[in-house]
Amino acid sequence: MAQLLRVQNFTVSSDGVGAGAEQSLDRPFGHVDPERLFAWAGATASWPGRTDPGGSRGLDDYFTRDFAHNIGAEIMGRNKFGPQRGPWDDLEWQGWWGDEPPFHTPVFVLTHHQRPSITLADTTFHFVDGDPATVLDQAREAAQGKDVRLGGGVSTVRQFLDADLVDTLHVAVSPVKLGSGLRLWESPDELLDRFELEVVPSPSGVAHHLFWRK
Amino acid sequence: MAQLLRVQNFTVSSDGVGAGAEQSLDRPFGHVDPERLFAWAGATASWPGRTDPGGSRGLDDYFTRDFAHNIGAEIMGRNKFGPQRGPWDDLEWQGWWGDEPPFHTPVFVLTHHQRPSITLADTTFHFVDGDPATVLDQAREAAQGKDVRLGGGVSTVRQFLDADLVDTLHVAVSPVKLGSGLRLWESPDELLDRFELEVVPSPSGVAHHLFWRK
Repeated sequence: MAQLLRVQNFTVSSDGVGAGAEQSLDRPFGHVDPERLFAWAGATASWPGRTDPGGSRGLDDYFTRDFAHNIGAEIMGRNKFGPQRGPWDDLEWQGWWGDEPPFHTPVFVLTHHQRPSITLADTTFHFVDGDPATVLDQAREAAQGKDVRLGGGVSTVRQFLDADLVDTLHVAVSPVKLGSGLRLWESPDELLDRFELEVVPSPSGVAHHLFWRK
Repeated sequence: MAQLLRVQNFTVSSDGVGAGAEQSLDRPFGHVDPERLFAWAGATASWPGRTDPGGSRGLDDYFTRDFAHNIGAEIMGRNKFGPQRGPWDDLEWQGWWGDEPPFHTPVFVLTHHQRPSITLADTTFHFVDGDPATVLDQAREAAQGKDVRLGGGVSTVRQFLDADLVDTLHVAVSPVKLGSGLRLWESPDELLDRFELEVVPSPSGVAHHLFWRK
């Protein structure tokens, strides 16, 4: 079985925006309110952040519970780890993900600025500088035969799409219009030359866009 | 996390028929052609019986790849194991599932007629006589904290529904009308007193019915 590179549960607005401008420590999504974008996922039984036993087990739950399925490593852009730019000047701060990050695998953080790896519970963050193909090779080796998840953000997904390294792409399009911010696409049709696409409307209001290589 | 009892990828015709009458060694589904019912699943990349690397990775694939997710044991009716009725008179014949059954867990086969357990690769079939709640307790213990899948057939699913032991139920309704046979329901609405329901049409033509306890 080939090791796929999979984008999972990546959520954008109806106009294709995945995050806002002006990211800061307090606002990982910049001017965008992530609760509005991710409401569909937070309502499911399998949402990792859930603290009570409820939650829906309908269509959206298949997506949240598939998040870790056969995933052995993640690749993320630096801005999904933290808001810093340039050299790391505070090595004490260990990212947005808390003491028990929801990844449970090695995570490769793309950065031009080296720093030592960090292990938090069963997640280890490695900081790597390299072109997408090289980093993907590293992540595949760490995944030990399992698939690799491409965790975002927008620029990172775009970078790996441009390098034609993505095998499957799940984008949840929320019924929220944002106007400005970091845009994944003008239209999902941009990917139809290389990918099959199914669009599956969910009762929650999001439209799940499922792309896989032709 | 509670251990759920889950029905997964159970497929019926548009008129609710899950299997035909007159089951025999050569025809596990009796007069019904299983290929017509299960075409939606066979077309996916994650179908366990797939021998070539192709297959779709759209909506239907989420269902076939979720089949084993967090499942630690299965319960099945005797007729899903083999066509025999009454006492087992041929212990050499080890069921329909071949040398590498697709379950990979303990499987509890409901029967009033005891026989020794059978291990085939990483699946062990246990033959148990008991009411649904008792068998579910056995399966839960064997599942070691994971969920239990209720594998069917129709009579077995009905029996556990009647005992109100099912937590989630995924039924794929195929666009095929069969007329006669073993019927899961007259209408999915029969379950709405106890379950939430989402109906998700797939591009393949099946309608995924997702039930979970209210």
